[in-house]
Amino acid sequence: MLLDGKVVASEKMERLKSEIKGIIEKYGIEPELKLIQVGNDPASTIYANSKIKRGTKLGINVTLEKFDNITMGKLVDYIKDANANSRINGIMVESPLPPSLNFQEVVDNISFYKDTDGMTSFNQGNLYTKNEMIAPATARAVVDILEYYKIQPGNACIINRSAVVGRPLAMLLLNRDYTVTLCHSKTVDIKRIARENNVLVVAIGKPDYIDESYVTSESTVIDVGINYSGNKISGDVNFDSVSNKAKNITPVPGGVGIVTATDIFENFLNGLKYQIKEKLI
Amino acid sequence: MLLDGKVVASEKMERLKSEIKGIIEKYGIEPELKLIQVGNDPASTIYANSKIKRGTKLGINVTLEKFDNITMGKLVDYIKDANANSRINGIMVESPLPPSLNFQEVVDNISFYKDTDGMTSFNQGNLYTKNEMIAPATARAVVDILEYYKIQPGNACIINRSAVVGRPLAMLLLNRDYTVTLCHSKTVDIKRIARENNVLVVAIGKPDYIDESYVTSESTVIDVGINYSGNKISGDVNFDSVSNKAKNITPVPGGVGIVTATDIFENFLNGLKYQIKEKLI
Repeated sequence: MLLDGKVVASEKMERLKSEIKGIIEKYGIEPELKLIQVGNDPASTIYANSKIKRGTKLGINVTLEKFDNITMGKLVDYIKDANANSRINGIMVESPLPPSLNFQEVVDNISFYKDTDGMTSFNQGNLYTKNEMIAPATARAVVDILEYYKIQPGNACIINRSAVVGRPLAMLLLNRDYTVTLCHSKTVDIKRIARENNVLVVAIGKPDYIDESYVTSESTVIDVGINYSGNKISGDVNFDSVSNKAKNITPVPGGVGIVTATDIFENFLNGLKYQIKEKLI
Repeated sequence: MLLDGKVVASEKMERLKSEIKGIIEKYGIEPELKLIQVGNDPASTIYANSKIKRGTKLGINVTLEKFDNITMGKLVDYIKDANANSRINGIMVESPLPPSLNFQEVVDNISFYKDTDGMTSFNQGNLYTKNEMIAPATARAVVDILEYYKIQPGNACIINRSAVVGRPLAMLLLNRDYTVTLCHSKTVDIKRIARENNVLVVAIGKPDYIDESYVTSESTVIDVGINYSGNKISGDVNFDSVSNKAKNITPVPGGVGIVTATDIFENFLNGLKYQIKEKLI
């Protein structure tokens, strides 16, 4: 079966839109998400613009603060002001940052309930105890797809150990009773491990790398990769090879990526609800 | 080979003692660890007393604040005062707390650099990005034993998914290039998975549960369990059965437990060094 991300994303977009509309009407607020970009990385600009576009569809005012360059101290001051500003309901720092700024140190200054990206250490640690109010959007997207298509929890192999994908996803899957194996570039015998798990999540950044030798007829394959080659976008999974054998597979594009783009706003909404509940706005 | 925890712990005790002595002499401070106990759980009292004893050996003043009962608000106020008190260098909340108090919500009020237990969400999330300044002591103890006995990183199976053991240990092992599988009570075919990994860490709370059918001649077995039955202490691993077959095994007692008791003070020392570096004391 093709696990179509567009369907998952569009259903979630409708729910988010309706919930945000309700909040705007009930509380008379104009929800705002503040994006912070340092430098001029072109991919980062594209992502920021797509967030502005999607946010607008949802009734969220997504604003971009761009710095050509900025010191750590000044950036932290800017974030602390945004934390204290009750008109700003979410804050995202676009990556990459220039080498002079450590991404984790920067984002750890964001109040946990405004951490739309889910990348603060506090929110990551919260996942340990099943508090999933805010979680990295890519990890949430993988879970959304599995749940939407009612894949039975079982054994999952994640080929990725980053703080953006592999680690938080492992926490979300453990919270749903999956047995989870985290693999990476140093893993020996990765094919055997991949085949022994009924869910295989791949985020390795190598176009078309995973072929049918990594799967069985029972595999559900979730392709997190987004690789650009000219105008062509491909995943980390060789779709033609794997889709002939595996039970389920996500396409690229139209799979995890579009659900991730939507799940950012799930974080935003959950943070907004928390701010309302705690009378912070 | 018997992986003797006493050797690991005693070597670490010597290092900690010497480092703390150096700090006391150089900065003229009297390091203090504040234990907070609510209620009268007898096991909790035993653990608190053993920390006081071990701390004294290390030149640390371990003090116990006992409340028969206390509200969340009052307890948070007490912790915030201790955070602000520069004479207190570490804070630990003894578990269990009464049902009216949520352990995670309570400890998340501790400043990360005074979080001797390593249980704040912030420090747990920090492990994602390889910042191991403070980590849950049991997870650190398992790694210490593996490293002391020079076990080659490979594939590790952890039977436990808690925030105290399984999840932080997975992070520490990933940081050391292990491929990690987290299993738990809902895992199917746990014996196969256990046998396929050269390191097996067990923390299930069932005395003598794991027998030789879970291991191979290549297995290194780390037994985190501490089960009391009358005066007898046993682990989760049936030592007689498994030690005949496995390559390496930790005993209980004298294995992970004694290293854990020491590693609490590794957290304390690392937090103390941070407080000195950041001129907080």
